[in-house]
Amino acid sequence: MLKTDEILDDLQNGYFIIQKQNGFKFGVDAVLLSDFAKDARSKRTLDLCTGTGIVPILLAAKTDTPRIDALEIQEDMADAARRSVEYNKLQNRITVTRGDLKDAVTIYGGGSFDAVTCNPPYMKRGAGLLGEADTKTVARHEILCTLDDVVRVSSKLLISKGRFFMIHRPSRLTDILCCMRGYRLEPKRLRLVCPSEGKAPNLVLVEGMKDGGGELKVLPPLIVHNADGSYTDEIDIIYGRTK
Amino acid sequence: MLKTDEILDDLQNGYFIIQKQNGFKFGVDAVLLSDFAKDARSKRTLDLCTGTGIVPILLAAKTDTPRIDALEIQEDMADAARRSVEYNKLQNRITVTRGDLKDAVTIYGGGSFDAVTCNPPYMKRGAGLLGEADTKTVARHEILCTLDDVVRVSSKLLISKGRFFMIHRPSRLTDILCCMRGYRLEPKRLRLVCPSEGKAPNLVLVEGMKDGGGELKVLPPLIVHNADGSYTDEIDIIYGRTK
Repeated sequence: MLKTDEILDDLQNGYFIIQKQNGFKFGVDAVLLSDFAKDARSKRTLDLCTGTGIVPILLAAKTDTPRIDALEIQEDMADAARRSVEYNKLQNRITVTRGDLKDAVTIYGGGSFDAVTCNPPYMKRGAGLLGEADTKTVARHEILCTLDDVVRVSSKLLISKGRFFMIHRPSRLTDILCCMRGYRLEPKRLRLVCPSEGKAPNLVLVEGMKDGGGELKVLPPLIVHNADGSYTDEIDIIYGRTK
Repeated sequence: MLKTDEILDDLQNGYFIIQKQNGFKFGVDAVLLSDFAKDARSKRTLDLCTGTGIVPILLAAKTDTPRIDALEIQEDMADAARRSVEYNKLQNRITVTRGDLKDAVTIYGGGSFDAVTCNPPYMKRGAGLLGEADTKTVARHEILCTLDDVVRVSSKLLISKGRFFMIHRPSRLTDILCCMRGYRLEPKRLRLVCPSEGKAPNLVLVEGMKDGGGELKVLPPLIVHNADGSYTDEIDIIYGRTK
């Protein structure tokens, strides 16, 4: 099931993931996003920009959600995601589709999901990126989809009161909150993620509700590392590690 | 100079402030706002919703800003602010005006300031507040001015590239960032304030630049209290205390 340049990583929760040895590998952001979204009590979830399928596989482990769709534009990544799903015998719960996020409403139909998750490319498309972009670059930069695409399409895919979960960069916070409100995904929960205490946040988790009202709840900052470099207790719990 | 129901509080920085014994007293928010705004290198600053004038007096202590205007709608508070300025012999730097924020462009003229600070009422006007509101209630609820009023008027009062500093509630973050962007006060710096480590933030400091571009910088969360209830070192420094 593995190609020559691929490795099988143990997720330590009974599941495994196929990743390229020297390609894009999932990071703490995918782990944090799946944990942040785990209480959605969803009947059908869609993960956009799924890459190697890490978020759907973690959601399968953390939730009872019976149907999880996963969309990825890059064929080699979608293919690896499909094989990871098979390896984990999760075909009855997770369906991977190769396709463009901008066509997602055509692919799935509007209002098909009660939860959408997304760990999108964080970086604005730079003027320097004009040539052929490799897999890693596409996963990290807004080349094939922008924040606006993600939020606009997610809003169309969600039922009213459906929930949207995204992880992104704090530097994009104004873009994120304004865009979400603009597409009627009202921000309801927000959490900054700091590498350690006293450090500036480098990630932000945000949850929105389609046609939601009321107030935004800003949670305590999530601290990733202790002063000695080890993971904090909360991160160990999120990763499912026991000390 | 003191009225019978007033007291003189020592700000521990060479200045004093007149406050009502049983009225609205300045809190940590005014102290944090003046510290957050202190590096603006302003030639002329305006403090909106100045109350008893605490922010202008702290700014006078922390900066070299030669001209600080202060606007307050409630006559008794504006009067106390004026007397505090006189008591501190700051008349040559601080000018207090009694007036409505919504008339501020008429009072001062558009583009008259390179910095505007504001510690506005945080709470949305509740349906329960229909009767005559007292001084404290006006200072805390959006009765005489709203977030939209503050941001819209501040934008008009600022020169291009002028800076706007506000402290508010995290629950209003989407309102704040969208409103600022809408009135061309692009958010540039943001800091959550947490009562202690692991606690949800209860205040947010935000800086915007008129016609600003580029990215938002989210600073490390500011922690107010140590686990034992004492102030953190950073808060002691902000208050100008030495241990």
